[in-house]
Parts: sequence; structure tokens; C-alpha cells
Amino acid sequence: MFKKRDNIKEVEEGKYLAPKFDENGLIPVITTDSQNGGILMHGYMNAEALKKTIESKEAHYWSRSRNKIWHKGQVSGFVQKVVEIKIDDDQDSIWLSVDIGNGASCHVGYKSCFYRSIPLGKIKNSEKLEMDFKENKKKFDPKKIYKGEPNPTKL
Amino acid sequence: MFKKRDNIKEVEEGKYLAPKFDENGLIPVITTDSQNGGILMHGYMNAEALKKTIESKEAHYWSRSRNKIWHKGQVSGFVQKVVEIKIDDDQDSIWLSVDIGNGASCHVGYKSCFYRSIPLGKIKNSEKLEMDFKENKKKFDPKKIYKGEPNPTKL
Repeated sequence: MFKKRDNIKEVEEGKYLAPKFDENGLIPVITTDSQNGGILMHGYMNAEALKKTIESKEAHYWSRSRNKIWHKGQVSGFVQKVVEIKIDDDQDSIWLSVDIGNGASCHVGYKSCFYRSIPLGKIKNSEKLEMDFKENKKKFDPKKIYKGEPNPTKL
Repeated sequence: MFKKRDNIKEVEEGKYLAPKFDENGLIPVITTDSQNGGILMHGYMNAEALKKTIESKEAHYWSRSRNKIWHKGQVSGFVQKVVEIKIDDDQDSIWLSVDIGNGASCHVGYKSCFYRSIPLGKIKNSEKLEMDFKENKKKFDPKKIYKGEPNPTKL
């Protein structure tokens, strides 16, 4: 289903899908909310997850923490219905626009994984950067939704 | 300037910036247009690029093709003025909202690097997937702007 990457001009300006998977067989994926364009999450797909996403029109990722295909929403119920998939100029990253209705995307409980903003400007020596919380309320209680599931965050 | 990542709860729910850089010292970055929220590009930063971006309020990346810090716009003139930087739940990806005025972001000449859309639905055996072009006109001629510069796309 993928074209061979044998020509830069074709990769950049051609019409055939020829994704570049990294040394672990993964391609990064940005997922936005089709209702308002906000970024929900940043994840990864392998070739199988990409194929499943295209065919089922529901987002599938590769979970690096669990080392397996991850049909988003299987545990939480927050399935992502795919509205559009785009790929970038050199075909090494993917943009997924999805409909999550009134749901959420972040395992911590917020709608978007990007709920904290980094302060801008000059940094003083050895200063720790204090972020602002931009979502004031969680959409769900992760303790209830993910009962018994391991936390995917790794240090 | 970064807090040590010694506690998952703090990484996820704390206020201190504690980014996770991968085995190559990089963190993925999604860059959106502050004017309309559309994704312009997907790139990477190392710790130095992140610090330069925070302090100068202009986007700096790590160029994997040239293996050096990349002050976006230094060659093309299309500098990205940072409006907001966010980080995700486990602090391993960054969202940069930038003002590019009436400029462009993609080295191929389009405004966004994501100018092609992948068809959805069942895939026939050995079918090559034909994409749709979503930007009908380039914003600039890369041959003029990047005269003599090597193409960053790698096969």
C-alpha cells in the first residue's frame, strides 16, 4: 500500500503515500480536534496502526509504553473518529483530525494532553520554569476510567 | 532550568517544566499558526533549541538533516514569532503556536508542510494510495529562496 521512497521529488511533490518510519518502525502523529483545531495529543503509529486507522476510520496508535497496537478509546470509551489524515512534505509525520464529540483525549483526565503553558522570556540561572495550567477542569476521573490499568507515563 | 523527572505525579500534574528528551537528546515539536490554528510543521528540539526559543521568542529547532541548531527563517526570512509554548501530560512533546504573518513554513514552498490528504476506507491489495493536494498554490519559489542550500528531505 506504500510507494517505495526512491526519489525526493516524488516524496515531496508526488501524489502517492510513501511514509518514512524511523529506526523503530514508527512515525510521529499529531492529533487535533476536528471541532476546533486544538491539538489533543502527540503519538506514534507503526505501518499496521496506520493501515488500521485508514481502513477503520478510528485512530490506532503504537503504544511505546505497552509495546503494542493501541486502539484509542478501547479502555476509556473515548474513541477518535477520523475526519482527515494528512502527511507532511517529506512524509515523516502525520496529522490526524478527529471527532471526539464531548469526550477527552488525555489519560490524566483533561480534554487535551497540552494543558500547561511554558513561560517565555529570559531565564535566570538555575531557575525552574513554572508553567500555567490552561484547562481549569478535568473532563473525567482517570482513577475511575482506567481502574487497574498501568500509567503509560515513563520517567 | 529543567526539573529532574523523578516522580510521575509531578511530571503529569506539577507546575515545573521537566521535559523528556529521547535517546538522541531530542523532543518532538508541533508548530501551529497562531492566526488559524492550522499545523505548519512537525520538528524536533534539543535542550539548547528549547532554551533559545523560550528566551528569544523565535522558534529554534534541531535540524536532523544538517545536525545543528536551526533558527527557523535564517535563510528564508520566514521567522516564527512564538505566541505560546505548551507541553503535554508526560512532557515528551511540545506545542508551539507561532505568528508567521503572511509567510510560509514549508521548504517545498507551501504555507503548511501538511498539504496532502490521505484517502480513507478499505485498501485493495497492493493498491498505492493516491493523495489529494489541499493547498492549490505555493507561497514562494523554493529554488529562489533556498538557492544553493541542500534539500533537507532524506529518503
